[in-house]
Amino acid sequence: MKLKFTLFAFLICSTTLVQAQDSLMLRKIYDEGLVNGKAYSNLHYLCKNIGQRISGSANAQKAVEWSKKLMESYGFDHVFLQEVMVPHWVRGPKEQGIIIDGKNRIPVHIAALGMSVATPKNGITAEVIELHSLKQLDSLGESKLKGKIVFFNRPFDQRFIETFRAYGTAGDQRNLGPAAAAKFGVAGVIVRSLSSTTDDYPHTGATRVAADGKNAPAAAISTKAADQLSSLLKKNPSLKFYFKQSCQTRPDTLSYNVVGEITGTVNPAKFITVGGHLDSWDLAEGAHDDGTGVMGSLEALRILKALGYRPKNTLRVVFFMNEENGDRGGIKYAELAAQNKEEHIAAIESDAGGFTPRGFGFTGLSSDQLKNLEQWKKLFFPYGSERLTAGGGGSDIEPLKEKVAGVVLIGLSPDSQRYFDIHHTPNDVFENVNKRELELGAASMASLIYLIDQHGFN
Amino acid sequence: MKLKFTLFAFLICSTTLVQAQDSLMLRKIYDEGLVNGKAYSNLHYLCKNIGQRISGSANAQKAVEWSKKLMESYGFDHVFLQEVMVPHWVRGPKEQGIIIDGKNRIPVHIAALGMSVATPKNGITAEVIELHSLKQLDSLGESKLKGKIVFFNRPFDQRFIETFRAYGTAGDQRNLGPAAAAKFGVAGVIVRSLSSTTDDYPHTGATRVAADGKNAPAAAISTKAADQLSSLLKKNPSLKFYFKQSCQTRPDTLSYNVVGEITGTVNPAKFITVGGHLDSWDLAEGAHDDGTGVMGSLEALRILKALGYRPKNTLRVVFFMNEENGDRGGIKYAELAAQNKEEHIAAIESDAGGFTPRGFGFTGLSSDQLKNLEQWKKLFFPYGSERLTAGGGGSDIEPLKEKVAGVVLIGLSPDSQRYFDIHHTPNDVFENVNKRELELGAASMASLIYLIDQHGFN
Repeated sequence: MKLKFTLFAFLICSTTLVQAQDSLMLRKIYDEGLVNGKAYSNLHYLCKNIGQRISGSANAQKAVEWSKKLMESYGFDHVFLQEVMVPHWVRGPKEQGIIIDGKNRIPVHIAALGMSVATPKNGITAEVIELHSLKQLDSLGESKLKGKIVFFNRPFDQRFIETFRAYGTAGDQRNLGPAAAAKFGVAGVIVRSLSSTTDDYPHTGATRVAADGKNAPAAAISTKAADQLSSLLKKNPSLKFYFKQSCQTRPDTLSYNVVGEITGTVNPAKFITVGGHLDSWDLAEGAHDDGTGVMGSLEALRILKALGYRPKNTLRVVFFMNEENGDRGGIKYAELAAQNKEEHIAAIESDAGGFTPRGFGFTGLSSDQLKNLEQWKKLFFPYGSERLTAGGGGSDIEPLKEKVAGVVLIGLSPDSQRYFDIHHTPNDVFENVNKRELELGAASMASLIYLIDQHGFN
Repeated sequence: MKLKFTLFAFLICSTTLVQAQDSLMLRKIYDEGLVNGKAYSNLHYLCKNIGQRISGSANAQKAVEWSKKLMESYGFDHVFLQEVMVPHWVRGPKEQGIIIDGKNRIPVHIAALGMSVATPKNGITAEVIELHSLKQLDSLGESKLKGKIVFFNRPFDQRFIETFRAYGTAGDQRNLGPAAAAKFGVAGVIVRSLSSTTDDYPHTGATRVAADGKNAPAAAISTKAADQLSSLLKKNPSLKFYFKQSCQTRPDTLSYNVVGEITGTVNPAKFITVGGHLDSWDLAEGAHDDGTGVMGSLEALRILKALGYRPKNTLRVVFFMNEENGDRGGIKYAELAAQNKEEHIAAIESDAGGFTPRGFGFTGLSSDQLKNLEQWKKLFFPYGSERLTAGGGGSDIEPLKEKVAGVVLIGLSPDSQRYFDIHHTPNDVFENVNKRELELGAASMASLIYLIDQHGFN
């Protein structure tokens, strides 16, 4: 009995000791991030000295070269590039969109959807059919759709607390709508911008291209203009819409993932990855999408290194290329991981904006492992990142799931309320990032990396 | 044994049923707030059609009159004003601040601190002594301070996760510094703006005036200019600073708290109060401070009324007057509550900005009552407002603690990262408020009011 008690007391004491050590380490991580943070100034350089960096562009190449140098300057053990062929889509001159309502010609803000085809040189003019779901295409059929402009206008469902869920449920209109409508011989497709707000900015984003070549030119229209068009259509169903865009898809281009490593002291062949995507849309600076993701991920490793932390496992920061219109960087990373028979413990992605972090979502944990996160919730509570929930990841790390057995995929979960106000618009600029919010995200990731490296998930 | 089991099962079932009902009600509250929310358009009116509304100003009176009409239009059972005499401080023409470094004259951004006295008509020119704490005044003494301009320049401690704590620990420089320095015969006081960020905007805010009339003119200087001044002082300790301000304190003015009530169906003489302050500083529109607080509080009651909820206890929304430079409205509200022998169950204040709500802080709960909040945490979790913690309130409801026994004081806790970037500056405008963040705050308050009304704290 006495022995049992002593053993029990020892176990309690050692658990408490470990927790106290972890707690101290987290405090050091956040202090370093908040006092000596570099993510914000790095993001400033990326946004203002490089700017937009759509896959295949000269700016994307500049971003790769600068990122590699930046990682090298941090004294990581290895910095290297992974070659990857990426799509090279080019927007061309600014698009034109006009509502033609009798004699009234009302110019509106549109932007070609990424990967879309161009309109004929002189644009398209056609009557408009407003739809709220893809299913309506089938009910209407070719007889009513052919030659028309389909206008998908289902707004965000504001009842979702997490705006990513509103984006997810409205997203089929942009992702699949144009190719689906093209099958019915439509002249073009206009999609209500995927946004939480009502304003004048069109939100671009990728649309799926049909393999059979049956595609219709597709553009996003600002939410304000979408409301206006819808309202005018109610009064005059035979009004017309004109739009013109000159985008084109050029041959695939060689590009790169940028990878930095701190080698593990105990298990150098086991990896914990953290990253975001380096490419951005072409309309702005890709500040929140995903400049904060790459700069926050890099900062997470910088913090650990600055604190003299020697990881058990190898820590990798990855700047993935081509998340926006192809996911080629993520696919290549997973292929190489499989090819090199790498063992991956976890991969963390930051691609939900650089807003105040609330926690992380986990995919690949057993229910017991999820329960074990309770201890970590307590550690994160003082820092506001204690929402550790089931389900999460990111487009760049998703391909690892199939290729590498046992990897746990993790997504950083920042506050989501403002993200879809600026997502894929000209407003995704440095000025809309808050320094402390970005720093807290980076420190949260550094903390999680530390905890996984120390304890795994058991 | 069987009976016991049945009773136990019944208790479990009834608890589960109550939780399910609460859960459904919260869903309805958030749906109403997110789909039919009025707080954002009301805030727009307050900011753009009325604007700044410092106590005693014509705009403050406009705000009172409009608020009363607005509450009346919502069909509350009672809408009334509470008379309160408030200070009437006037800034006068824009202040001037100049660093005089040899032949260089560098204009910088300053703003008189609220309630400060004016400089002499032609301003003050004097050498500058940079201090980081009020204690340094005593060590230096009158011989070194007399005739000088004291420059309090201790920055925010960025290590605090909640920026309110950084504000709290830096705040003595603005609140107490000028009066403390005046005792040593200083010519004037310049205070580094209480801000998380580094920019060109001075942050005003109240400073305490000495009852003995020994006061020195005091102004806030932008954080960027504070850094510049500090840096120049290191090279040239005998540089001078010039500043001029023409502010004055006029006789107290009659103003009002605006109160709306939904009468309780069971306990009409027991009150649950929710509110914020209607007055603002004069430099901008008082959007986050505290337009979102008053409009969010009103929205909380609008939501409950729109859902047909008949409260057990009387619900009150209060727009307090004069939080910024006197707290007279809050003091008056508590005095009247005591005078009328009102029983107050709880008072909720929203005065920490209209950012995404994270939870609430509670003052006046026993440790058992705090434990009971666990159930509510579960209810709030899907909405992200589950951080229910000990300690909280607000300046307007604080006086209730002394005057009314048993009242629980509660503060809405929004994300705090951006608040002190714009607090008390020309940037506190409508455009810096996000519609959904404001709506979520209002729905969180409506939910908490519902839960307190239904269950109390036991």
